[in-house]
Amino acid sequence: MPPTPPAADAALLARAVALATENARTGRGGPFGAVVARDGVVIAEGTNLVTATHDPTAHAEIVAIRAACRALRSHQLDRCVVYASCEPCPMCLGALYWARPTAVWFAASRADAAAAGFDDALVYAEVAVPPEARRLPFRRALEVEGRAPFDALRANGARRPY
Amino acid sequence: MPPTPPAADAALLARAVALATENARTGRGGPFGAVVARDGVVIAEGTNLVTATHDPTAHAEIVAIRAACRALRSHQLDRCVVYASCEPCPMCLGALYWARPTAVWFAASRADAAAAGFDDALVYAEVAVPPEARRLPFRRALEVEGRAPFDALRANGARRPY
Repeated sequence: MPPTPPAADAALLARAVALATENARTGRGGPFGAVVARDGVVIAEGTNLVTATHDPTAHAEIVAIRAACRALRSHQLDRCVVYASCEPCPMCLGALYWARPTAVWFAASRADAAAAGFDDALVYAEVAVPPEARRLPFRRALEVEGRAPFDALRANGARRPY
Repeated sequence: MPPTPPAADAALLARAVALATENARTGRGGPFGAVVARDGVVIAEGTNLVTATHDPTAHAEIVAIRAACRALRSHQLDRCVVYASCEPCPMCLGALYWARPTAVWFAASRADAAAAGFDDALVYAEVAVPPEARRLPFRRALEVEGRAPFDALRANGARRPY
Protein backbone atom coordinates (compact mmCIF):
# COMPACT_ATOMS: atom_id res chain seq x y z
CA MET A 1 0.00 0.00 0.00
CA PRO A 2 1.46 3.35 -0.99
CA PRO A 3 1.99 6.02 1.67
CA THR A 4 -0.84 8.49 2.21
CA PRO A 5 -0.05 11.56 0.12
CA PRO A 6 0.20 15.00 1.70
CA ALA A 7 -3.26 16.57 1.78
CA ALA A 8 -2.34 19.28 -0.74
CA ASP A 9 -1.10 16.72 -3.24
CA ALA A 10 -4.17 14.55 -2.70
CA ALA A 11 -6.46 17.51 -3.33
CA LEU A 12 -4.71 18.47 -6.56
CA LEU A 13 -4.72 14.87 -7.76
CA ALA A 14 -8.42 14.64 -6.92
CA ARG A 15 -8.95 17.77 -9.04
CA ALA A 16 -7.23 16.03 -11.99
CA VAL A 17 -9.53 13.03 -11.51
CA ALA A 18 -12.59 15.29 -11.32
CA LEU A 19 -11.59 16.98 -14.59
CA ALA A 20 -11.25 13.53 -16.17
CA THR A 21 -14.65 12.41 -14.94
CA GLU A 22 -16.31 15.57 -16.21
CA ASN A 23 -14.61 15.22 -19.60
CA ALA A 24 -15.93 11.66 -19.91
CA ARG A 25 -19.38 12.52 -18.59
CA THR A 26 -19.89 15.31 -21.11
CA GLY A 27 -18.32 13.33 -23.96
CA ARG A 28 -15.99 16.23 -24.67
CA GLY A 29 -13.02 13.90 -24.82
CA GLY A 30 -11.24 10.95 -23.30
CA PRO A 31 -11.51 10.22 -19.56
CA PHE A 32 -8.28 11.95 -18.62
CA GLY A 33 -7.39 15.11 -16.73
CA ALA A 34 -4.25 16.84 -15.49
CA VAL A 35 -3.23 19.74 -13.30
CA VAL A 36 0.07 21.64 -13.06
CA ALA A 37 0.74 23.39 -9.76
CA ARG A 38 3.57 25.28 -8.12
CA ASP A 39 3.76 25.59 -4.34
CA GLY A 40 0.27 24.10 -4.22
CA VAL A 41 -1.21 26.78 -6.50
CA VAL A 42 -2.78 25.65 -9.78
CA ILE A 43 -0.94 27.07 -12.81
CA ALA A 44 -2.96 25.25 -15.49
CA GLU A 45 -5.42 22.43 -16.03
CA GLY A 46 -6.00 20.16 -18.99
CA THR A 47 -8.29 17.45 -20.26
CA ASN A 48 -8.05 15.12 -23.22
CA LEU A 49 -9.11 17.08 -26.31
CA VAL A 50 -7.92 14.71 -29.06
CA THR A 51 -11.18 14.52 -31.00
CA ALA A 52 -12.52 17.93 -29.97
CA THR A 53 -9.48 19.71 -31.43
CA HIS A 54 -8.38 17.21 -34.12
CA ASP A 55 -5.07 16.89 -32.29
CA PRO A 56 -3.67 13.43 -31.51
CA THR A 57 -1.17 15.04 -29.12
CA ALA A 58 -3.90 16.71 -27.02
CA HIS A 59 -3.69 14.29 -24.11
CA ALA A 60 -4.57 15.87 -20.78
CA GLU A 61 -0.96 16.08 -19.60
CA ILE A 62 0.23 17.73 -22.82
CA VAL A 63 -2.68 20.19 -22.77
CA ALA A 64 -1.88 21.10 -19.15
CA ILE A 65 1.89 21.31 -19.72
CA ARG A 66 1.45 23.57 -22.74
CA ALA A 67 -0.99 25.83 -20.90
CA ALA A 68 1.25 26.03 -17.83
CA CYS A 69 4.30 26.89 -19.94
CA ARG A 70 2.32 29.59 -21.72
CA ALA A 71 1.28 31.01 -18.34
CA LEU A 72 4.84 30.89 -17.02
CA ARG A 73 6.35 32.07 -20.33
CA SER A 74 8.91 29.30 -20.01
CA HIS A 75 9.52 25.97 -21.71
CA GLN A 76 10.41 24.49 -18.33
CA LEU A 77 8.10 23.76 -15.41
CA ASP A 78 10.58 24.75 -12.73
CA ARG A 79 9.40 23.91 -9.20
CA CYS A 80 6.10 22.59 -10.58
CA VAL A 81 4.35 19.30 -9.87
CA VAL A 82 2.12 17.58 -12.42
CA TYR A 83 -0.99 15.68 -11.29
CA ALA A 84 -2.48 13.25 -13.82
CA SER A 85 -5.70 11.28 -13.41
CA CYS A 86 -3.99 8.29 -15.04
CA GLU A 87 -0.46 7.00 -15.52
CA PRO A 88 1.01 8.90 -18.49
CA CYS A 89 1.49 7.23 -21.88
CA PRO A 90 4.99 7.25 -23.41
CA MET A 91 4.27 10.46 -25.37
CA CYS A 92 3.24 12.26 -22.19
CA LEU A 93 6.10 10.70 -20.25
CA GLY A 94 8.49 12.15 -22.81
CA ALA A 95 6.80 15.54 -22.58
CA LEU A 96 7.14 15.43 -18.79
CA TYR A 97 10.88 14.76 -19.06
CA TRP A 98 11.31 17.70 -21.47
CA ALA A 99 9.21 19.99 -19.24
CA ARG A 100 11.13 19.01 -16.11
CA PRO A 101 8.63 19.30 -13.26
CA THR A 102 9.92 18.19 -9.87
CA ALA A 103 7.47 15.30 -9.52
CA VAL A 104 4.46 13.59 -11.08
CA TRP A 105 1.45 12.19 -9.23
CA PHE A 106 -1.05 9.85 -10.87
CA ALA A 107 -4.15 7.94 -9.77
CA ALA A 108 -5.32 5.25 -12.23
CA SER A 109 -2.74 2.83 -13.59
CA ARG A 110 -2.03 1.88 -17.18
CA ALA A 111 -3.83 -1.39 -16.38
CA ASP A 112 -6.97 0.53 -15.39
CA ALA A 113 -6.74 2.47 -18.66
CA ALA A 114 -6.27 -0.72 -20.69
CA ALA A 115 -9.34 -2.26 -19.03
CA ALA A 116 -11.29 0.77 -20.30
CA GLY A 117 -9.97 0.31 -23.85
CA PHE A 118 -7.05 2.74 -23.75
CA ASP A 119 -4.09 0.48 -24.22
CA ASP A 120 -0.68 2.12 -24.17
CA ALA A 121 1.11 -1.25 -24.01
CA LEU A 122 1.94 -1.34 -27.72
CA VAL A 123 3.51 2.11 -27.61
CA TYR A 124 5.43 1.30 -24.42
CA ALA A 125 6.77 -1.81 -26.14
CA GLU A 126 7.61 -0.11 -29.44
CA VAL A 127 9.75 2.57 -27.77
CA ALA A 128 12.21 -0.16 -26.84
CA VAL A 129 12.27 -1.70 -30.33
CA PRO A 130 14.96 -0.60 -32.83
CA PRO A 131 13.42 1.66 -35.51
CA GLU A 132 13.87 -0.89 -38.30
CA ALA A 133 11.93 -3.54 -36.36
CA ARG A 134 8.87 -1.51 -35.38
CA ARG A 135 5.30 -2.26 -36.42
CA LEU A 136 5.01 1.30 -37.71
CA PRO A 137 7.68 1.22 -40.44
CA PHE A 138 10.60 3.51 -39.58
CA ARG A 139 13.01 3.93 -42.51
CA ARG A 140 16.30 5.77 -42.61
CA ALA A 141 17.94 7.60 -45.52
CA LEU A 142 20.16 10.62 -46.21
CA GLU A 143 22.41 9.64 -43.29
CA VAL A 144 25.16 12.08 -44.25
CA GLU A 145 22.92 14.95 -45.35
CA GLY A 146 20.97 14.53 -42.10
CA ARG A 147 23.91 15.85 -40.10
CA ALA A 148 23.82 19.25 -41.83
CA PRO A 149 21.40 20.82 -39.30
CA PHE A 150 23.80 19.99 -36.46
CA ASP A 151 26.68 21.48 -38.47
CA ALA A 152 24.57 24.62 -38.97
CA LEU A 153 24.02 24.82 -35.23
CA ARG A 154 27.76 24.56 -34.57
CA ALA A 155 28.47 27.18 -37.24
CA ASN A 156 25.93 29.40 -35.50
CA GLY A 157 28.27 29.84 -32.52
CA ALA A 158 27.54 26.32 -31.24
CA ARG A 159 24.64 27.86 -29.38
CA ARG A 160 22.31 25.18 -28.14
CA PRO A 161 18.91 26.85 -28.03
CA TYR A 162 17.84 24.88 -24.95
CA MET B 1 23.81 0.16 -46.24
CA PRO B 2 20.09 0.97 -46.41
CA PRO B 3 18.29 0.73 -49.74
CA THR B 4 18.06 3.87 -51.82
CA PRO B 5 14.71 5.51 -51.04
CA PRO B 6 12.21 6.27 -53.77
CA ALA B 7 12.97 9.69 -55.22
CA ALA B 8 9.76 11.24 -53.86
CA ASP B 9 10.52 10.06 -50.33
CA ALA B 10 14.10 11.27 -50.61
CA ALA B 11 12.94 14.71 -51.74
CA LEU B 12 10.48 15.05 -48.86
CA LEU B 13 13.07 13.89 -46.36
CA ALA B 14 15.55 16.38 -47.82
CA ARG B 15 12.92 19.08 -47.30
CA ALA B 16 12.66 18.12 -43.61
CA VAL B 17 16.45 18.34 -43.33
CA ALA B 18 16.46 21.74 -45.08
CA LEU B 19 13.86 23.03 -42.62
CA ALA B 20 16.03 21.82 -39.75
CA THR B 21 19.15 23.47 -41.14
CA GLU B 22 17.33 26.76 -41.65
CA ASN B 23 15.89 26.61 -38.12
CA ALA B 24 19.38 26.13 -36.68
CA ARG B 25 20.98 28.73 -38.97
CA THR B 26 18.52 31.44 -37.95
CA GLY B 27 18.57 30.44 -34.29
CA ARG B 28 14.78 30.21 -34.31
CA GLY B 29 14.89 26.84 -32.60
CA GLY B 30 16.55 23.46 -32.37
CA PRO B 31 18.08 21.85 -35.47
CA PHE B 32 15.07 19.71 -36.30
CA GLY B 33 12.46 19.72 -39.07
CA ALA B 34 9.57 17.53 -40.18
CA VAL B 35 7.16 17.21 -43.08
CA VAL B 36 3.82 15.37 -43.33
CA ALA B 37 2.78 14.32 -46.82
CA ARG B 38 0.02 12.31 -48.43
CA ASP B 39 0.49 10.77 -51.88
CA GLY B 40 3.68 12.80 -52.15
CA VAL B 41 1.92 16.12 -51.51
CA VAL B 42 3.00 18.16 -48.48
CA ILE B 43 0.18 18.57 -45.95
CA ALA B 44 2.18 20.42 -43.30
CA GLU B 45 5.69 21.26 -42.20
CA GLY B 46 7.18 21.87 -38.78
CA THR B 47 10.35 22.93 -37.06
CA ASN B 48 11.41 22.84 -33.45
CA LEU B 49 9.81 25.82 -31.70
CA VAL B 50 10.41 24.90 -28.05
CA THR B 51 12.00 28.15 -26.96
CA ALA B 52 10.29 30.38 -29.52
CA THR B 53 6.84 29.38 -28.29
CA HIS B 54 7.61 28.45 -24.65
CA ASP B 55 6.36 24.94 -25.43
CA PRO B 56 8.46 21.92 -24.43
CA THR B 57 6.27 19.73 -26.67
CA ALA B 58 6.95 21.82 -29.79
CA HIS B 59 9.38 19.37 -31.35
CA ALA B 60 9.36 19.47 -35.16
CA GLU B 61 7.39 16.23 -35.50
CA ILE B 62 4.70 17.35 -33.04
CA VAL B 63 4.43 20.77 -34.70
CA ALA B 64 4.04 19.11 -38.12
CA ILE B 65 1.59 16.46 -36.88
CA ARG B 66 -0.61 19.07 -35.20
CA ALA B 67 -0.60 21.30 -38.28
CA ALA B 68 -1.36 18.39 -40.59
CA CYS B 69 -4.24 17.21 -38.40
CA ARG B 70 -5.64 20.75 -38.33
CA ALA B 71 -5.42 20.87 -42.14
CA LEU B 72 -7.08 17.46 -42.49
CA ARG B 73 -9.59 18.14 -39.70
CA SER B 74 -8.80 14.71 -38.31
CA HIS B 75 -6.90 13.38 -35.32
CA GLN B 76 -5.48 10.62 -37.53
CA LEU B 77 -2.95 10.95 -40.34
CA ASP B 78 -4.58 8.37 -42.60
CA ARG B 79 -2.47 7.50 -45.65
CA CYS B 80 0.16 10.05 -44.61
CA VAL B 81 3.92 9.63 -44.29
CA VAL B 82 6.00 11.62 -41.82
CA TYR B 83 9.53 12.74 -42.74
CA ALA B 84 11.75 13.81 -39.84
CA SER B 85 15.24 15.27 -40.10
CA CYS B 86 16.27 13.20 -37.08
CA GLU B 87 15.17 10.00 -35.37
CA PRO B 88 12.17 10.89 -33.18
CA CYS B 89 12.49 11.12 -29.39
CA PRO B 90 10.12 8.96 -27.26
CA MET B 91 7.59 11.80 -26.97
CA CYS B 92 7.44 12.18 -30.75
CA LEU B 93 7.45 8.42 -31.23
CA GLY B 94 4.38 8.22 -29.01
CA ALA B 95 2.73 11.04 -30.95
CA LEU B 96 3.43 9.19 -34.21
CA TYR B 97 1.76 6.04 -32.89
CA TRP B 98 -1.31 8.02 -31.83
CA ALA B 99 -1.46 9.86 -35.18
CA ARG B 100 -1.08 6.63 -37.16
CA PRO B 101 0.72 7.59 -40.35
CA THR B 102 1.60 4.69 -42.65
CA ALA B 103 5.37 5.16 -42.32
CA VAL B 104 8.10 7.39 -40.90
CA TRP B 105 11.34 8.37 -42.64
CA PHE B 106 14.24 9.93 -40.77
CA ALA B 107 17.78 11.04 -41.67
CA ALA B 108 20.04 11.70 -38.66
CA SER B 109 20.19 9.10 -35.91
CA ARG B 110 19.75 9.54 -32.18
CA ALA B 111 23.55 9.12 -31.96
CA ASP B 112 24.04 12.10 -34.31
CA ALA B 113 21.67 14.12 -32.12
CA ALA B 114 23.48 13.09 -28.94
CA ALA B 115 26.81 14.15 -30.47
CA ALA B 116 25.26 17.60 -30.97
CA GLY B 117 24.09 17.77 -27.34
CA PHE B 118 20.52 16.54 -27.77
CA ASP B 119 20.51 13.34 -25.79
CA ASP B 120 17.28 11.38 -25.76
CA ALA B 121 18.94 8.33 -24.17
CA LEU B 122 17.74 9.14 -20.65
CA VAL B 123 14.13 9.44 -21.79
CA TYR B 124 14.37 6.28 -23.89
CA ALA B 125 15.68 4.46 -20.81
CA GLU B 126 13.14 5.91 -18.40
CA VAL B 127 10.15 4.79 -20.47
CA ALA B 128 11.12 1.21 -19.67
CA VAL B 129 11.54 1.85 -15.94
CA PRO B 130 8.59 1.24 -13.57
CA PRO B 131 7.10 4.57 -12.42
CA GLU B 132 8.26 4.17 -8.82
CA ALA B 133 11.89 3.70 -9.90
CA ARG B 134 12.26 6.65 -12.26
CA ARG B 135 14.67 9.55 -11.82
CA LEU B 136 11.72 11.92 -12.16
CA PRO B 137 9.67 10.88 -9.11
CA PHE B 138 6.37 9.28 -10.16
CA ARG B 139 4.02 8.75 -7.20
CA ARG B 140 0.66 7.04 -7.13
CA ALA B 141 -2.35 7.77 -4.92
CA LEU B 142 -6.18 7.70 -5.05
CA GLU B 143 -6.04 4.29 -6.76
CA VAL B 144 -9.77 3.62 -6.27
CA GLU B 145 -10.99 7.17 -6.95
CA GLY B 146 -8.84 7.20 -10.09
CA ARG B 147 -11.12 4.68 -11.78
CA ALA B 148 -14.14 7.03 -11.61
CA PRO B 149 -13.45 8.65 -15.01
CA PHE B 150 -13.55 5.24 -16.70
CA ASP B 151 -16.80 4.45 -14.88
CA ALA B 152 -18.19 7.77 -16.14
CA LEU B 153 -17.23 6.81 -19.68
CA ARG B 154 -19.00 3.46 -19.36
CA ALA B 155 -22.06 5.19 -17.89
CA ASN B 156 -21.98 7.52 -20.88
CA GLY B 157 -23.02 4.69 -23.19
CA ALA B 158 -19.54 3.11 -23.05
CA ARG B 159 -18.70 5.37 -25.95
CA ARG B 160 -14.97 5.47 -26.50
CA PRO B 161 -14.34 8.89 -28.01
CA TYR B 162 -11.50 7.60 -30.23
